Formats: sequence, structure tokens, C-alpha cells
Amino acid sequence: MKKSIGIIGGMGSLATSDLFNKIVTLTDASNDREHIRIFIDNNSSIPDRTAAILHGGQNPVPAMSDSLAKLESIGADCIIMPCNTAHYFLPELVKRTSLPFISMIDATALACACDFPGSTAAILATEGTVKSRIYQEALSAKGVDFLEPDAHELSLLMDVIYGGVKAGQPPASYRNALMNVIDSMRCRGADYYILGCTELPIAFSSALSSAPGSPLSSLPDSLPDLQAGPPLNPLPPTIDPTCELAKAAIRFCGYDVKPL
Amino acid sequence: MKKSIGIIGGMGSLATSDLFNKIVTLTDASNDREHIRIFIDNNSSIPDRTAAILHGGQNPVPAMSDSLAKLESIGADCIIMPCNTAHYFLPELVKRTSLPFISMIDATALACACDFPGSTAAILATEGTVKSRIYQEALSAKGVDFLEPDAHELSLLMDVIYGGVKAGQPPASYRNALMNVIDSMRCRGADYYILGCTELPIAFSSALSSAPGSPLSSLPDSLPDLQAGPPLNPLPPTIDPTCELAKAAIRFCGYDVKPL
Repeated sequence: MKKSIGIIGGMGSLATSDLFNKIVTLTDASNDREHIRIFIDNNSSIPDRTAAILHGGQNPVPAMSDSLAKLESIGADCIIMPCNTAHYFLPELVKRTSLPFISMIDATALACACDFPGSTAAILATEGTVKSRIYQEALSAKGVDFLEPDAHELSLLMDVIYGGVKAGQPPASYRNALMNVIDSMRCRGADYYILGCTELPIAFSSALSSAPGSPLSSLPDSLPDLQAGPPLNPLPPTIDPTCELAKAAIRFCGYDVKPL
Repeated sequence: MKKSIGIIGGMGSLATSDLFNKIVTLTDASNDREHIRIFIDNNSSIPDRTAAILHGGQNPVPAMSDSLAKLESIGADCIIMPCNTAHYFLPELVKRTSLPFISMIDATALACACDFPGSTAAILATEGTVKSRIYQEALSAKGVDFLEPDAHELSLLMDVIYGGVKAGQPPASYRNALMNVIDSMRCRGADYYILGCTELPIAFSSALSSAPGSPLSSLPDSLPDLQAGPPLNPLPPTIDPTCELAKAAIRFCGYDVKPL
């Protein structure tokens, strides 16, 4: 018996759309009826997760629980959330339902261990995700070496996520900030990058793959606020947690992931 | 009081994801909480609409009604369907709910009248949509001149829609078929093209905008099965019903469409 997916969405909306698109395009289906039934509540009323974790902001659990109850009432067989930071609240949500959650963080840690054995991951994420240590704990449990962003890198990442993607700004406005973080963490020993906020796969694909010719070839030779070598070329190796969650959900529901 | 959207989806799944993405990117929002609450049932169990209209296939109304009831039960304020052919069944669905539907066909006919006054539209759609005459009636009501696809053009369109996009095939596999239809209808007097099946905006953007350099520049000089001039360049003018539906829904819910 094949299963359906329930998505607690809206954190943010573009990231939810990105997850939905990745589930559909990664499902091995040759007509409409071979796809997965997917219920989505794009709940834009959920308060900001980082603000709640770090700054005494409004608790997002009641609004997330509302979505959870709605998805359960219409027949979802499992629950996923396209927001890494939201996974900090997973223990609270699990108590409120008998439905299984598929964790984006666990799926990502498993992919890191399988795809990059012996290498060092850079965690690119919100301040809420980094300081709550959800990735650090999941990666340690799988024996994956990692680097956290330092204060400056974290500040640049927050600009990309909140001032760029969530604000609907054009990729050119946050491209240099993203490049600076990548280069800075590469200099500190990162071998690959976990795009550990659901806005970051969107930022990467739109800001770093959209330039004509080589993706990074039009950057200035020297970047102002780091001591780095020449621009990165080709694109750095990444793990996309949205893709890892999509694949885990497809398999959980009894469908096949499309061969590359 | 701002309203939420309910989407009866899965007809197909990629088209549903495309509509969701267009609503999000066209909404004038600068953070997560300024977006629209959107409920989606990506109901992949809905039987094929063209088969039901023309070939005695299974009636899709019960499965569509199941989605409608689910969306109503969790609080949707209006209903939209990212499937042009499905609008043939709209009178049946309207009877089953007190929620307002926003019609993709009406939104498109209005856009044709406003954006291309005095010009002739080519209706690109499934056989079910063309033969049920839903577009012809809506366009006539707005005084819009139009051409329908002939039998050969319709056959090519069905190949693009069913054998291409719905089957998850690469754009290169259906690019020539799409080009042939465009050129053939241009020769018959079409000034612009209604992408009147939700798979067609996807086909257009992936097949006709993805080639390097000029989108159509790598086509052979002569296409085998039509008497046409040189390849079309630039891209032909189009109306995208998915975009028109997205904009109509954004406005209905009390939000602003993002300025270009």
C-alpha cells in the first residue's frame, strides 16, 4: 500500500515550493497517476523559528501543530517540514501525533556519511539552526566531521537567507555574500557544504548557476573581506537537505526515486 | 481580512508545483509571513480528464470532489485547479460547495482581451479542452478572435503533453513537435499563443528557453512536416494561464501582485 505525504510548509513559501518540485521531479513516474499524493499546508502564519529559539520570539509550535492537525485530518501518512531550523521543535510536534515524521536533518547526516566519507562538511544554516546544534548532533552521531560558521560567516548567511531569498530579492543582491562564506570556510578546511537552510539551495542555484559561462567566472579577482585565493571554479560540492528529504519521503511512501 | 487558497492538484503534479511556485514568486511579500496561506491536495488519483470527456474513461468528478471536501474542511477560502481540461467539470464541482472557484479559463480570456486587443489567439490545449470548447466559449464572450489546432497540430500537442511533460521526458524529446505546432499555427494566422494546458508553460520554458544562445537558433533550417519560413526568433508571444490564474488568486485573497 503506497503512502501519502503531508508537508508543514510556509517556512518559507519558496522553500516549500522547492521541496514540492523536488519530490515531483525525483519520483519515477510516467503519468499523472504514478505520482505521490501530497498534502501541503503552506502556513505563512508560523512565527520565525530563529527568533523563537534565540531572541524570545513567539513560539511557532501552536501554528505548526495547527498544520499538523489539518494534514492528519485529511489523510497524510507521514509528515515532513521544509525548514531545517523548524526541526529544533520536532520533539514537541512528535508528542502531538501518531504520524511518523521524516527528519530532514537525519536524512542529510546519512547522505554526508555515505557520499563524503572522511571529508569535512561546512554547515551553512541560520543562527537558530547553528546555535541549537541540531546538525552538529546528527553529524556526530554518524561520525561526520564538520565546521560551523563563525560569527562573521553566520551574519553573511543570515543576510542571504533573510535579506535575499525570503525577501524575494534578486540573486545578484546576495551572490557575493554567499561566495564569501564559501571561500572563507574552504580556507578553514571545508571539503563540501551542507545547504542547511531551505533557502540556501534556492540561493545556490539562482545566484551561483545563473551567470553566463562559468558560474563564478564573472566575480572580481579579489573579494574584499576575506583572504582567499582565486574565485571557486567549478561550483563547490554540496549536500542539498531538500533533495535528501525528498528522496527519503519518496522511498518511505513506497515509490522509486528516478534514476539520474 | 486576507483569504487562503485551496488547490485541487495532481492534474499533473509538475503543473501543480508550477502554479504554487508562480503564486509564491508573484506575491509581493518581503518575508515568510507576508505570503498567502495555501492548501494543496496533490491528488494523483484523479482519472484523466481528456479520456473521460472523449473516450468514456473513468469520471474524475468523485476524486476531484474528495479533494474539494478536504480543502474545504481545513479552511480554504477559494478553490483553484491547475488543469485547463478539468474546467469542463467545473459546473459539477460548483454544485458541491459554497466556496468560490476562480476559473483559469476566464482569467485567461480576460488577459487575452486586455493584452492583445484585435489580435488572433492560437489555442494550444489537450484534445479534451479543444473538443469541449471551454476556451472557444470564454474567448468569444470576451470578443477575442482565435484559431483552434487542426487534427495534426492537436496530435503533436498531445505528444508534447502526455509523451513529454507528464511522462517526465527531457525537453529535447518534444522540442521539435512544439516548434512545428507554433510555426504551423503562425502560418495560419496566429498572432499569439494560449498555453492552454498546464503542461505547456513548463514545456515552453524548458524546451524553448533552454538552448544555448538564442532559444531557437540551434534548430535545423527546415522542419520536416510543415511549410514554414525560418525558425521563429525571438520566442513567440504567449499567454500563460497558470500565471493568469496565479495573479487572479493573489488579488482575490487580498494580496498584491509583485511589480515587474
